Amino acid sequence: MTRSSSPDPARRSERSRQAVLTAAAELVAEVGFGKLTIEAIAARAGVGKQTIYRWWPSKGAVVFDAFQAANENASGSLALPDTGDLAADLRAVLRPTADQLADPGFDNTGRGLVSEHQRDPALLREYRERLLDPLLEVTRERLRTAREAGQIDGDADLDLAVELLYGPMYYRWLHGLGPLDHAYADRLVDGVLRALRP
Amino acid sequence: MTRSSSPDPARRSERSRQAVLTAAAELVAEVGFGKLTIEAIAARAGVGKQTIYRWWPSKGAVVFDAFQAANENASGSLALPDTGDLAADLRAVLRPTADQLADPGFDNTGRGLVSEHQRDPALLREYRERLLDPLLEVTRERLRTAREAGQIDGDADLDLAVELLYGPMYYRWLHGLGPLDHAYADRLVDGVLRALRP
Repeated sequence: MTRSSSPDPARRSERSRQAVLTAAAELVAEVGFGKLTIEAIAARAGVGKQTIYRWWPSKGAVVFDAFQAANENASGSLALPDTGDLAADLRAVLRPTADQLADPGFDNTGRGLVSEHQRDPALLREYRERLLDPLLEVTRERLRTAREAGQIDGDADLDLAVELLYGPMYYRWLHGLGPLDHAYADRLVDGVLRALRP
Repeated sequence: MTRSSSPDPARRSERSRQAVLTAAAELVAEVGFGKLTIEAIAARAGVGKQTIYRWWPSKGAVVFDAFQAANENASGSLALPDTGDLAADLRAVLRPTADQLADPGFDNTGRGLVSEHQRDPALLREYRERLLDPLLEVTRERLRTAREAGQIDGDADLDLAVELLYGPMYYRWLHGLGPLDHAYADRLVDGVLRALRP
Protein backbone atom coordinates (compact mmCIF):
# COMPACT_ATOMS: atom_id res chain seq x y z
CA MET A 1 0.00 0.00 0.00
CA THR A 2 1.65 3.24 -1.04
CA ARG A 3 -1.32 5.43 -0.20
CA SER A 4 -2.21 6.40 3.34
CA SER A 5 -5.24 4.81 4.94
CA SER A 6 -8.56 6.35 4.07
CA PRO A 7 -12.11 6.28 5.31
CA ASP A 8 -13.28 5.07 1.87
CA PRO A 9 -15.38 1.94 2.73
CA ALA A 10 -14.63 0.20 -0.57
CA ARG A 11 -10.92 0.48 0.07
CA ARG A 12 -11.30 -0.66 3.67
CA SER A 13 -13.29 -3.68 2.44
CA GLU A 14 -10.59 -4.55 -0.05
CA ARG A 15 -7.96 -4.34 2.70
CA SER A 16 -9.99 -6.70 4.88
CA ARG A 17 -10.49 -9.09 1.99
CA GLN A 18 -6.75 -9.17 1.30
CA ALA A 19 -6.01 -9.67 5.01
CA VAL A 20 -8.40 -12.65 5.09
CA LEU A 21 -6.82 -14.22 2.00
CA THR A 22 -3.30 -13.76 3.35
CA ALA A 23 -4.28 -15.21 6.74
CA ALA A 24 -6.00 -18.17 5.09
CA ALA A 25 -2.96 -18.91 2.90
CA GLU A 26 -0.58 -18.71 5.85
CA LEU A 27 -2.73 -20.80 8.16
CA VAL A 28 -3.47 -23.56 5.70
CA ALA A 29 0.28 -23.95 5.14
CA GLU A 30 0.87 -24.03 8.91
CA VAL A 31 -1.91 -26.30 10.18
CA GLY A 32 -3.26 -27.99 7.05
CA PHE A 33 -6.71 -27.68 5.57
CA GLY A 34 -8.34 -30.15 7.95
CA LYS A 35 -7.48 -28.22 11.10
CA LEU A 36 -8.05 -24.76 9.64
CA THR A 37 -11.00 -22.84 11.14
CA ILE A 38 -12.83 -19.68 10.11
CA GLU A 39 -12.20 -18.43 13.68
CA ALA A 40 -8.44 -18.69 13.27
CA ILE A 41 -8.52 -16.93 9.90
CA ALA A 42 -10.65 -14.11 11.35
CA ALA A 43 -8.33 -13.73 14.36
CA ARG A 44 -5.18 -13.54 12.27
CA ALA A 45 -6.75 -11.21 9.71
CA GLY A 46 -8.06 -8.93 12.47
CA VAL A 47 -11.64 -9.09 11.22
CA GLY A 48 -14.84 -10.51 12.66
CA LYS A 49 -16.09 -13.97 11.68
CA GLN A 50 -19.18 -12.32 10.21
CA THR A 51 -17.01 -10.39 7.76
CA ILE A 52 -15.72 -13.67 6.41
CA TYR A 53 -19.15 -15.27 6.23
CA ARG A 54 -20.47 -12.22 4.39
CA TRP A 55 -18.07 -12.87 1.52
CA TRP A 56 -17.50 -16.61 1.54
CA PRO A 57 -19.94 -19.48 2.09
CA SER A 58 -17.36 -21.92 3.49
CA LYS A 59 -13.80 -22.53 4.58
CA GLY A 60 -13.21 -24.26 1.23
CA ALA A 61 -14.28 -21.13 -0.64
CA VAL A 62 -11.92 -18.85 1.34
CA VAL A 63 -8.97 -21.16 0.80
CA PHE A 64 -9.82 -21.47 -2.85
CA ASP A 65 -9.72 -17.69 -3.27
CA ALA A 66 -6.50 -17.47 -1.27
CA PHE A 67 -5.02 -20.11 -3.51
CA GLN A 68 -6.12 -18.30 -6.64
CA ALA A 69 -4.80 -14.94 -5.35
CA ALA A 70 -1.41 -16.53 -4.60
CA ASN A 71 -1.35 -18.07 -8.07
CA GLU A 72 -2.11 -14.76 -9.73
CA ASN A 73 0.67 -13.07 -7.78
CA ALA A 74 3.09 -15.82 -8.75
CA SER A 75 2.34 -16.18 -12.42
CA GLY A 76 0.63 -12.99 -13.57
CA SER A 77 -2.19 -13.36 -16.05
CA LEU A 78 -2.99 -16.78 -17.41
CA ALA A 79 -1.39 -17.22 -20.81
CA LEU A 80 1.00 -19.52 -22.57
CA PRO A 81 4.00 -17.96 -24.27
CA ASP A 82 4.15 -18.32 -28.04
CA THR A 83 7.77 -18.03 -29.07
CA GLY A 84 7.30 -20.40 -32.00
CA ASP A 85 9.23 -23.09 -30.08
CA LEU A 86 6.45 -25.33 -28.78
CA ALA A 87 8.68 -27.44 -26.52
CA ALA A 88 10.14 -24.34 -24.85
CA ASP A 89 6.68 -22.81 -24.41
CA LEU A 90 5.31 -25.96 -22.77
CA ARG A 91 8.35 -26.24 -20.50
CA ALA A 92 7.70 -22.63 -19.47
CA VAL A 93 4.37 -23.80 -18.03
CA LEU A 94 5.26 -27.25 -16.74
CA ARG A 95 8.48 -26.32 -14.93
CA PRO A 96 6.78 -23.77 -12.64
CA THR A 97 3.91 -26.22 -12.15
CA ALA A 98 6.43 -28.84 -10.96
CA ASP A 99 8.03 -26.22 -8.67
CA GLN A 100 4.65 -25.39 -7.18
CA LEU A 101 3.63 -29.00 -6.60
CA ALA A 102 7.04 -29.73 -5.02
CA ASP A 103 6.73 -26.75 -2.66
CA PRO A 104 5.89 -28.05 0.86
CA GLY A 105 4.02 -24.79 1.54
CA PHE A 106 1.72 -25.48 -1.39
CA ASP A 107 1.40 -29.18 -0.71
CA ASN A 108 -0.91 -28.90 2.31
CA THR A 109 -3.19 -26.36 0.65
CA GLY A 110 -3.29 -28.26 -2.60
CA ARG A 111 -4.18 -31.60 -1.03
CA GLY A 112 -6.80 -29.93 1.16
CA LEU A 113 -8.40 -28.42 -1.92
CA VAL A 114 -8.36 -31.70 -3.86
CA SER A 115 -9.99 -33.35 -0.88
CA GLU A 116 -12.71 -30.68 -0.72
CA HIS A 117 -13.32 -30.75 -4.48
CA GLN A 118 -13.98 -34.47 -4.38
CA ARG A 119 -16.54 -34.02 -1.60
CA ASP A 120 -18.22 -30.90 -2.91
CA PRO A 121 -19.29 -30.83 -6.58
CA ALA A 122 -20.08 -27.08 -6.39
CA LEU A 123 -16.51 -26.30 -5.30
CA LEU A 124 -15.12 -28.54 -8.05
CA ARG A 125 -17.26 -26.69 -10.57
CA GLU A 126 -15.95 -23.35 -9.29
CA TYR A 127 -12.37 -24.60 -9.52
CA ARG A 128 -12.94 -25.74 -13.07
CA GLU A 129 -14.61 -22.53 -14.20
CA ARG A 130 -12.15 -20.18 -12.54
CA LEU A 131 -8.84 -21.99 -12.84
CA LEU A 132 -8.70 -25.32 -14.61
CA ASP A 133 -10.79 -24.72 -17.74
CA PRO A 134 -9.02 -21.44 -18.58
CA LEU A 135 -5.62 -23.14 -18.13
CA LEU A 136 -6.63 -26.06 -20.35
CA GLU A 137 -8.04 -23.69 -22.95
CA VAL A 138 -4.90 -21.53 -23.27
CA THR A 139 -2.90 -24.75 -23.55
CA ARG A 140 -5.19 -26.10 -26.27
CA GLU A 141 -4.95 -22.74 -28.02
CA ARG A 142 -1.14 -22.92 -28.06
CA LEU A 143 -1.35 -26.48 -29.43
CA ARG A 144 -3.85 -25.35 -32.05
CA THR A 145 -1.36 -22.76 -33.31
CA ALA A 146 1.32 -25.45 -33.42
CA ARG A 147 -1.03 -27.75 -35.33
CA GLU A 148 -1.75 -25.03 -37.88
CA ALA A 149 2.00 -24.49 -38.25
CA GLY A 150 2.42 -28.22 -38.97
CA GLN A 151 4.52 -28.73 -35.83
CA ILE A 152 2.19 -31.40 -34.46
CA ASP A 153 -0.01 -33.99 -36.15
CA GLY A 154 -2.93 -32.51 -38.09
CA ASP A 155 -5.30 -35.03 -36.51
CA ALA A 156 -4.00 -34.52 -32.95
CA ASP A 157 -6.78 -34.76 -30.33
CA LEU A 158 -6.16 -31.59 -28.31
CA ASP A 159 -8.41 -32.62 -25.40
CA LEU A 160 -6.31 -35.73 -24.98
CA ALA A 161 -3.12 -33.73 -25.54
CA VAL A 162 -3.73 -31.39 -22.59
CA GLU A 163 -4.57 -34.36 -20.38
CA LEU A 164 -1.31 -36.03 -21.46
CA LEU A 165 0.52 -32.84 -20.45
CA TYR A 166 -1.03 -32.16 -17.06
CA GLY A 167 -2.39 -35.57 -16.02
CA PRO A 168 0.86 -37.48 -15.41
CA MET A 169 2.42 -34.73 -13.27
CA TYR A 170 -0.76 -34.39 -11.24
CA TYR A 171 -0.96 -38.18 -10.82
CA ARG A 172 2.68 -38.28 -9.65
CA TRP A 173 2.05 -35.46 -7.15
CA LEU A 174 -1.25 -36.80 -5.84
CA HIS A 175 0.22 -40.24 -5.08
CA GLY A 176 3.77 -39.16 -4.20
CA LEU A 177 5.23 -41.38 -6.93
CA GLY A 178 8.48 -39.51 -7.55
CA PRO A 179 10.33 -36.21 -7.63
CA LEU A 180 8.73 -33.18 -9.26
CA ASP A 181 11.50 -31.13 -10.80
CA HIS A 182 12.49 -29.48 -14.07
CA ALA A 183 14.10 -32.65 -15.39
CA TYR A 184 10.77 -34.45 -14.93
CA ALA A 185 8.82 -31.57 -16.53
CA ASP A 186 11.17 -31.64 -19.52
CA ARG A 187 10.90 -35.42 -19.96
CA LEU A 188 7.12 -35.12 -19.81
CA VAL A 189 7.06 -32.40 -22.48
CA ASP A 190 9.37 -34.48 -24.69
CA GLY A 191 7.15 -37.54 -24.27
CA VAL A 192 3.97 -35.66 -25.12
CA LEU A 193 5.56 -34.02 -28.16
CA ARG A 194 6.64 -37.45 -29.39
CA ALA A 195 3.03 -38.57 -29.04
CA LEU A 196 1.88 -35.54 -31.08
CA ARG A 197 4.53 -35.66 -33.82
CA PRO A 198 3.22 -35.28 -37.38
CA MET B 1 -22.23 -69.75 0.46
CA THR B 2 -22.91 -73.31 -0.59
CA ARG B 3 -22.09 -74.84 2.78
CA SER B 4 -24.53 -74.74 5.67
CA SER B 5 -23.76 -72.49 8.60
CA SER B 6 -21.33 -73.80 11.15
CA PRO B 7 -20.28 -73.01 14.68
CA ASP B 8 -16.65 -72.66 13.57
CA PRO B 9 -15.67 -69.18 14.89
CA ALA B 10 -13.16 -68.50 12.12
CA ARG B 11 -15.81 -69.10 9.49
CA ARG B 12 -18.36 -67.01 11.40
CA SER B 13 -15.80 -64.19 11.57
CA GLU B 14 -15.17 -64.39 7.86
CA ARG B 15 -18.93 -64.23 7.21
CA SER B 16 -19.20 -61.11 9.37
CA ARG B 17 -16.22 -59.54 7.64
CA GLN B 18 -17.78 -60.16 4.22
CA ALA B 19 -21.12 -58.78 5.42
CA VAL B 20 -19.41 -55.60 6.61
CA LEU B 21 -17.56 -55.17 3.31
CA THR B 22 -20.72 -55.72 1.28
CA ALA B 23 -22.71 -53.31 3.45
CA ALA B 24 -19.96 -50.68 3.20
CA ALA B 25 -19.79 -50.99 -0.59
CA GLU B 26 -23.57 -50.72 -0.95
CA LEU B 27 -23.93 -47.81 1.45
CA VAL B 28 -21.12 -45.73 0.05
CA ALA B 29 -22.73 -46.03 -3.38
CA GLU B 30 -26.11 -45.01 -1.94
CA VAL B 31 -25.24 -42.13 0.39
CA GLY B 32 -21.69 -41.17 -0.57
CA PHE B 33 -18.58 -41.40 1.53
CA GLY B 34 -19.22 -38.17 3.44
CA LYS B 35 -22.54 -39.31 4.89
CA LEU B 36 -21.54 -42.90 5.50
CA THR B 37 -21.36 -43.92 9.16
CA ILE B 38 -19.95 -46.94 10.97
CA GLU B 39 -23.38 -47.27 12.65
CA ALA B 40 -25.13 -47.64 9.29
CA ILE B 41 -22.61 -50.22 8.09
CA ALA B 42 -23.01 -52.22 11.31
CA ALA B 43 -26.81 -52.11 11.09
CA ARG B 44 -26.91 -53.28 7.50
CA ALA B 45 -24.29 -55.98 8.05
CA GLY B 46 -26.12 -57.23 11.15
CA VAL B 47 -23.06 -56.91 13.38
CA GLY B 48 -22.22 -54.71 16.35
CA LYS B 49 -20.20 -51.51 15.94
CA GLN B 50 -17.51 -53.06 18.13
CA THR B 51 -17.03 -55.85 15.60
CA ILE B 52 -16.19 -53.26 12.97
CA TYR B 53 -13.85 -51.31 15.25
CA ARG B 54 -12.07 -54.52 16.18
CA TRP B 55 -11.00 -55.03 12.58
CA TRP B 56 -10.80 -51.54 11.11
CA PRO B 57 -9.44 -48.31 12.62
CA SER B 58 -11.69 -45.96 10.61
CA LYS B 59 -14.49 -45.58 8.12
CA GLY B 60 -11.86 -44.92 5.44
CA ALA B 61 -10.18 -48.25 6.18
CA VAL B 62 -13.46 -50.21 5.88
CA VAL B 63 -14.36 -48.57 2.60
CA PHE B 64 -10.86 -49.13 1.32
CA ASP B 65 -11.12 -52.87 2.01
CA ALA B 66 -14.62 -52.98 0.50
CA PHE B 67 -13.25 -51.28 -2.58
CA GLN B 68 -10.35 -53.68 -2.83
CA ALA B 69 -12.61 -56.72 -2.34
CA ALA B 70 -14.91 -55.49 -5.12
CA ASN B 71 -11.91 -54.93 -7.38
CA GLU B 72 -10.59 -58.42 -6.76
CA ASN B 73 -13.95 -59.91 -7.55
CA ALA B 74 -14.15 -57.90 -10.77
CA SER B 75 -10.68 -58.39 -12.13
CA GLY B 76 -9.22 -61.50 -10.52
CA SER B 77 -5.55 -61.42 -9.69
CA LEU B 78 -3.54 -58.37 -10.65
CA ALA B 79 -1.63 -59.04 -13.86
CA LEU B 80 -1.29 -57.62 -17.32
CA PRO B 81 -1.85 -59.97 -20.25
CA ASP B 82 1.19 -60.62 -22.43
CA THR B 83 -0.08 -61.66 -25.85
CA GLY B 84 2.89 -60.06 -27.61
CA ASP B 85 0.59 -57.28 -28.86
CA LEU B 86 1.43 -54.41 -26.50
CA ALA B 87 -1.39 -52.12 -27.67
CA ALA B 88 -3.98 -54.87 -27.18
CA ASP B 89 -2.59 -55.73 -23.74
CA LEU B 90 -2.71 -52.11 -22.58
CA ARG B 91 -6.23 -51.68 -23.93
CA ALA B 92 -7.19 -54.78 -21.92
CA VAL B 93 -6.32 -52.82 -18.77
CA LEU B 94 -7.39 -49.31 -19.72
CA ARG B 95 -10.82 -50.18 -21.12
CA PRO B 96 -12.07 -51.80 -17.88
CA THR B 97 -10.48 -48.93 -15.94
CA ALA B 98 -12.52 -46.48 -18.03
CA ASP B 99 -15.64 -48.60 -17.44
CA GLN B 100 -15.05 -48.54 -13.71
CA LEU B 101 -14.45 -44.78 -13.52
CA ALA B 102 -17.55 -44.16 -15.64
CA ASP B 103 -19.72 -46.35 -13.38
CA PRO B 104 -21.89 -44.10 -11.18
CA GLY B 105 -21.83 -46.76 -8.47
CA PHE B 106 -18.06 -46.55 -8.32
CA ASP B 107 -17.91 -42.78 -8.68
CA ASN B 108 -19.09 -41.95 -5.14
CA THR B 109 -16.79 -44.49 -3.52
CA GLY B 110 -13.85 -43.50 -5.63
CA ARG B 111 -14.16 -39.78 -4.94
CA GLY B 112 -14.66 -40.45 -1.24
CA LEU B 113 -11.46 -42.47 -1.17
CA VAL B 114 -9.47 -39.84 -3.06
CA SER B 115 -10.74 -37.27 -0.61
CA GLU B 116 -9.68 -39.41 2.37
CA HIS B 117 -6.27 -40.23 0.88
CA GLN B 118 -5.46 -36.56 0.49
CA ARG B 119 -6.32 -35.93 4.14
CA ASP B 120 -4.73 -39.00 5.62
CA PRO B 121 -1.16 -39.88 4.58
CA ALA B 122 -1.38 -43.31 6.29
CA LEU B 123 -4.40 -44.26 4.18
CA LEU B 124 -2.67 -43.03 1.03
CA ARG B 125 0.36 -45.15 1.92
CA GLU B 126 -1.90 -48.18 2.39
CA TYR B 127 -3.60 -47.54 -0.95
CA ARG B 128 -0.22 -47.30 -2.65
CA GLU B 129 1.20 -50.44 -1.06
CA ARG B 130 -1.86 -52.59 -1.56
CA LEU B 131 -3.26 -51.39 -4.88
CA LEU B 132 -1.44 -48.69 -6.77
CA ASP B 133 2.20 -49.77 -6.57
CA PRO B 134 1.42 -53.38 -7.60
CA LEU B 135 -0.63 -52.09 -10.56
CA LEU B 136 2.13 -49.74 -11.66
CA GLU B 137 4.72 -52.48 -11.27
CA VAL B 138 2.90 -55.06 -13.41
CA THR B 139 2.43 -52.34 -16.02
CA ARG B 140 6.13 -51.43 -15.94
CA GLU B 141 6.95 -55.13 -16.18
CA ARG B 142 4.84 -55.49 -19.34
CA LEU B 143 6.56 -52.42 -20.82
CA ARG B 144 9.96 -53.82 -19.88
CA THR B 145 9.20 -56.97 -21.88
CA ALA B 146 8.14 -54.81 -24.82
CA ARG B 147 11.34 -52.77 -24.51
CA GLU B 148 13.44 -55.94 -24.56
CA ALA B 149 11.54 -57.07 -27.66
CA GLY B 150 12.39 -53.75 -29.33
CA GLN B 151 8.73 -52.73 -29.52
CA ILE B 152 9.30 -49.51 -27.61
CA ASP B 153 12.27 -47.16 -27.38
CA GLY B 154 15.32 -48.68 -25.66
CA ASP B 155 15.72 -45.53 -23.55
CA ALA B 156 12.03 -45.27 -22.61
CA ASP B 157 11.52 -43.99 -19.05
CA LEU B 158 9.09 -46.57 -17.66
CA ASP B 159 8.15 -44.54 -14.57
CA LEU B 160 7.05 -41.73 -16.86
CA ALA B 161 5.41 -44.24 -19.22
CA VAL B 162 3.05 -45.62 -16.57
CA GLU B 163 2.12 -42.09 -15.50
CA LEU B 164 1.38 -41.23 -19.14
CA LEU B 165 -0.90 -44.27 -19.27
CA TYR B 166 -2.88 -43.84 -16.07
CA GLY B 167 -2.48 -40.11 -15.30
CA PRO B 168 -4.56 -38.58 -18.11
CA MET B 169 -7.56 -40.87 -17.53
CA TYR B 170 -7.44 -40.23 -13.79
CA TYR B 171 -7.15 -36.48 -14.40
CA ARG B 172 -10.15 -36.58 -16.74
CA TRP B 173 -12.21 -38.52 -14.21
CA LEU B 174 -11.21 -36.45 -11.19
CA HIS B 175 -12.18 -33.19 -12.88
CA GLY B 176 -15.06 -34.47 -15.01
CA LEU B 177 -13.38 -33.26 -18.21
CA GLY B 178 -14.97 -35.65 -20.68
CA PRO B 179 -16.44 -39.09 -21.36
CA LEU B 180 -14.62 -42.19 -20.14
CA ASP B 181 -15.23 -44.93 -22.67
CA HIS B 182 -13.37 -47.48 -24.74
CA ALA B 183 -12.77 -45.01 -27.57
CA TYR B 184 -11.00 -42.72 -25.09
CA ALA B 185 -8.99 -45.60 -23.60
CA ASP B 186 -7.89 -46.65 -27.09
CA ARG B 187 -6.86 -43.10 -28.09
CA LEU B 188 -4.89 -42.83 -24.87
CA VAL B 189 -3.06 -46.12 -25.52
CA ASP B 190 -2.30 -45.02 -29.10
CA GLY B 191 -0.95 -41.67 -27.88
CA VAL B 192 1.29 -43.25 -25.26
CA LEU B 193 2.62 -45.84 -27.71
CA ARG B 194 3.48 -43.02 -30.14
CA ALA B 195 5.42 -41.37 -27.30
CA LEU B 196 7.29 -44.64 -26.66
CA ARG B 197 8.04 -45.60 -30.28
CA PRO B 198 11.63 -46.69 -30.98
